[in-house]
Amino acid sequence: MKQRIFNKDEAKVLEEIILHRRDIRGNKFLQTPLSDAVIEKILYAALNAPSVGFSQPWEFVIVKEQSIKEQVKQSFNEENQKGATYFKGKKQKQYLQLKLEGITEAPVNIAVFYKKSKDPVLGQTSMKETGLYSVVCAVQNMWLMARALNIGIGWVSLINPRKIKRILNAPAENQLVAYLCIGHVVEFLEKPELEIIKWESRKLMNNVIINNKYKIQKHENI
Amino acid sequence: MKQRIFNKDEAKVLEEIILHRRDIRGNKFLQTPLSDAVIEKILYAALNAPSVGFSQPWEFVIVKEQSIKEQVKQSFNEENQKGATYFKGKKQKQYLQLKLEGITEAPVNIAVFYKKSKDPVLGQTSMKETGLYSVVCAVQNMWLMARALNIGIGWVSLINPRKIKRILNAPAENQLVAYLCIGHVVEFLEKPELEIIKWESRKLMNNVIINNKYKIQKHENI
Repeated sequence: MKQRIFNKDEAKVLEEIILHRRDIRGNKFLQTPLSDAVIEKILYAALNAPSVGFSQPWEFVIVKEQSIKEQVKQSFNEENQKGATYFKGKKQKQYLQLKLEGITEAPVNIAVFYKKSKDPVLGQTSMKETGLYSVVCAVQNMWLMARALNIGIGWVSLINPRKIKRILNAPAENQLVAYLCIGHVVEFLEKPELEIIKWESRKLMNNVIINNKYKIQKHENI
Repeated sequence: MKQRIFNKDEAKVLEEIILHRRDIRGNKFLQTPLSDAVIEKILYAALNAPSVGFSQPWEFVIVKEQSIKEQVKQSFNEENQKGATYFKGKKQKQYLQLKLEGITEAPVNIAVFYKKSKDPVLGQTSMKETGLYSVVCAVQNMWLMARALNIGIGWVSLINPRKIKRILNAPAENQLVAYLCIGHVVEFLEKPELEIIKWESRKLMNNVIINNKYKIQKHENI
């Protein structure tokens, strides 16, 4: 592989892919099947993600069987109902009107697992969680690659990981990191849906950037 | 923002950025300062990462002061020494020859924190860790955007998060997710260094893909 220098237009392409990526739910998925070539391209992006100590601690379960998706959907239904109770009044009403997943609508689901290495991993000896973080980097690569192929991904987190593991016969040592719904889409919304409906507002860069160190905190010696 | 359809060449650009991204250490960083425009482009990519419930639970500490970097480097030295003890014989010798960070060589370090929301977050009620995962998605966006700008990033995980928080006066509730070293580079290696020196071998796609569900495990009822 030659030393590759990217030009401004190419950097701009990446910026646009990042800006136009969306979380896709069931009301935006088309039933059109996904070709194997597309799934492979998305997985290839995952496999080339960074990983602590080059441990590549990931496994991907490609779910196409509708009966499996329906079991996963049941776990979503339970967790979503619980989830709604965290919000009150108007906010709860708004919550209940949102379509938060596309498990059965998407032609393909992918469950992404962290599989802990049996041997010590270089770079993971002080911060164990970097193994999980490697898997998340792979998921973000998939999300961006899908968007570049005009394919939508939705990340479903309102599920019970223990139940999903049981449904998929996953080995006890595997940890579920992400459950993704993937498919062609009706459209990519102009902005994140939760921004459009004013559920949360966008944070300004100045509010999340600190120069050199935080100003002295009252609780600095906790 | 208009509906954006990407073409094959644009998808290919993303694939190349993903394939040519490397973890950069001190022996590959140039002293050349980073322009504010470049830092801002990288942070803009971070701020447009996906986040659970659009919570954007991230904070970025931009470290340019050399004295702060030197304190962080000391934590690395301690953790790296401990890290080496996990490996024996030849492997330990190889470990000790590796340059695993570029804290003081890189013109800019960025400490990336997870700041837990005070209110319940939509989508985070069943899998709490998705808040941390949102921050990792932001880090991966930064890494790719940096590469597209021909800038290198190295993720240092051989540090003690409690010590880094103390050095940066970070609020008690903040959780350190990543410590990044950023700068212009001498070169991007052809392959990951740990692959080149055969520390770990690359996993084949077939070995990490499962169709529909795992075959029955002995410990399925654990």
